[in-house]
Amino acid sequence: MAKITKVSPLAPVAFPELPAIDGVRFATVEASVRYQGRTDVMLAVLDPGTSVAGVFTRSATRAAPVLDCQDKVGGANDGPAAILVNSGNANAFTGHYGQSSVTELTQAVATATGVDVGRVFTSSTGVIGEPLPHERIVAQLEVLKSGLSRHAIEDAARAIMTTDTFPKGASAQVEINGKTVSIAGIAKGSGMIAPDMATMLVYIFTDAQVAQPALQAMLGTQADRTFNCITVDSDTSTSDTLLLCATGASGVDATCNDAFARALEGVMLDLAHQVVRDGEGATKFVEIRVTGAVSDIDAKVHGLAVANSPLVKTAIAGEDPNWGRVVMAIGKSGAAADRDLLSISFGDILVAEKGWVSPDYREEDAAAYMKGQDLVIAVDLGLGDGKSTVWTCDLTHGYIEINADYRS
Amino acid sequence: MAKITKVSPLAPVAFPELPAIDGVRFATVEASVRYQGRTDVMLAVLDPGTSVAGVFTRSATRAAPVLDCQDKVGGANDGPAAILVNSGNANAFTGHYGQSSVTELTQAVATATGVDVGRVFTSSTGVIGEPLPHERIVAQLEVLKSGLSRHAIEDAARAIMTTDTFPKGASAQVEINGKTVSIAGIAKGSGMIAPDMATMLVYIFTDAQVAQPALQAMLGTQADRTFNCITVDSDTSTSDTLLLCATGASGVDATCNDAFARALEGVMLDLAHQVVRDGEGATKFVEIRVTGAVSDIDAKVHGLAVANSPLVKTAIAGEDPNWGRVVMAIGKSGAAADRDLLSISFGDILVAEKGWVSPDYREEDAAAYMKGQDLVIAVDLGLGDGKSTVWTCDLTHGYIEINADYRS
Repeated sequence: MAKITKVSPLAPVAFPELPAIDGVRFATVEASVRYQGRTDVMLAVLDPGTSVAGVFTRSATRAAPVLDCQDKVGGANDGPAAILVNSGNANAFTGHYGQSSVTELTQAVATATGVDVGRVFTSSTGVIGEPLPHERIVAQLEVLKSGLSRHAIEDAARAIMTTDTFPKGASAQVEINGKTVSIAGIAKGSGMIAPDMATMLVYIFTDAQVAQPALQAMLGTQADRTFNCITVDSDTSTSDTLLLCATGASGVDATCNDAFARALEGVMLDLAHQVVRDGEGATKFVEIRVTGAVSDIDAKVHGLAVANSPLVKTAIAGEDPNWGRVVMAIGKSGAAADRDLLSISFGDILVAEKGWVSPDYREEDAAAYMKGQDLVIAVDLGLGDGKSTVWTCDLTHGYIEINADYRS
Repeated sequence: MAKITKVSPLAPVAFPELPAIDGVRFATVEASVRYQGRTDVMLAVLDPGTSVAGVFTRSATRAAPVLDCQDKVGGANDGPAAILVNSGNANAFTGHYGQSSVTELTQAVATATGVDVGRVFTSSTGVIGEPLPHERIVAQLEVLKSGLSRHAIEDAARAIMTTDTFPKGASAQVEINGKTVSIAGIAKGSGMIAPDMATMLVYIFTDAQVAQPALQAMLGTQADRTFNCITVDSDTSTSDTLLLCATGASGVDATCNDAFARALEGVMLDLAHQVVRDGEGATKFVEIRVTGAVSDIDAKVHGLAVANSPLVKTAIAGEDPNWGRVVMAIGKSGAAADRDLLSISFGDILVAEKGWVSPDYREEDAAAYMKGQDLVIAVDLGLGDGKSTVWTCDLTHGYIEINADYRS
């Protein structure tokens, strides 16, 4: 098991105040799935009529709970719904036993809560390849049911943590036709960087009313702009799951509403950034802004090539304004680039332009900039209008310590 | 500049005895391009009639010498040829000045040696973004010319080193129609892992006679099986260059000769493995064997996903038989995989099969195996006949030290 580390230097000061979302109740419990002396299961119960949309890992070796969720998202949504999440065991790569555990769990939740089994969603995060002791969770369902509360979302954020060094939450409120709609979300994950013990799980709730197909479309679009634009080490979990639940309790229809979409994007981006800020060993939060690419897709390919380059990430860790490594990453990305049209900035400092170092560039300015905790690396390709922004962290001894120095 | 490290623990005991290749002479000199007190330029002069084939980095931000070589390979081959290589400065991302340096250098070599400028090939490796002081090299050309020797290939291997911790050479001899043909090659590079100071450069010489188009085709095929199957950290230099020169001095035509092709592949694979064994911070040499894929291309995608995964590489550094990370890497690769058909072995130890841990697997056996220095991770997809083998090293604190702890 990975070493328990101290809180990330990039963590927010405190868990934010999140608004209660009408139509959602939470409960948590200590089920001792793997951890002792802490909560490790959360249950959320959603009122009838809630639309549930989901985005999942694209891994070809997806875990059983992910496959089960994918089957259910988009189904009937007239009755209530439930989400059950455990930490400590991912129920991934557990053969046919994995699916049996999901069946046992979802049926037990259905029986305990009266929710149709087709509306019971589960996630598991933690160690891979070990059978999930689902009976320990089933044994706690009555306790969970009796503890359901509108105000327990922070407890839920804590119960789903694995290698996370802080719980992650974000919210927004938006006025639509004179009425207030609320969005609140929680996430866990230290990037996609420790599939033994970490996975990215995100649950977002709103009292807005949005039909499922519209909700799913909105979630897919926003995921591409937020969670799909972050990377810690380019590794992808077998269990990544993002669920968005619209209870409709506010009575406000937010379908195709731009203000709502922007507020949702803000919550998702906030949570995505918190995942990067909890990246294993991270000491710098880095935004890579790519402009002037042939297309937005090309811009994202370039951005991820820079963000995933071990040489760029170690340079950032060393506070080294090593723009040659950015040139290298752009060059290897496979997307269109012209060496002699490229320009690179660190913050407001123009480092390189027209295929060479900028005449006004002073290394000491850039070296001073790199000492900051939040950094922006901007790359303009000079080829077109394509743009994309991605976020990452640095690669430090802390990453090696967590992932190599301790046996899992 | 990166810290000067001690010799890699994976280095060969000594530089091998390489046969002299008829038709090639070498010289080296101290030109103080950047380093002091060591040779930093090598010149090779090739007899008239030598065929020259080349494979180059696919980077979109290729350095000026690479672009120049690419233009020249495949041109006329009746006269003599020359290769000039300097270490200490990559002449990469140096704008129009970079091309001027190449022009000055190649013309000076042509004048000094009598080789047509269209047959003068140059490479530069070292720091990016600084103008190459080509006049320091030009000033040494007469010294180089007067020092040319058939027996200086090891000196050449040393002159082109940058962050390398040992010089790299390999050779083979093969009988064709009762006559012996020799192949000898040198390489530099610590992987594609330090574009400031490192790049992969490879020069291979043979006295076999092979027409240029056939030589080029053979080189491309063999590069895909050797140098394109190694990775240290997934980063790609702006200057990678591989030249193969067939002098024909043996009088033996090796065009389309299988024994020659196999011998050449052996030399290339040996040099490629030496580059991995000199990977920055490497303590383990790892072979990833993928079988049962839908196609050879899919197999290579899977193999490189495993070889480039920071989580797999840190697990190997930690001597942790963490097969869950191999599952994760296969899942994220994008190539076809079925979780429940996958099997994974570490050496002879079957770790996982049919979507779960193997019933006979004992963690202590795999943990003991992982303590070895040369490791094999085998993955069978169970889907088809596609196969590929790639080679990599582990990701250690040494890598972070070299690339983050010291300012370049």
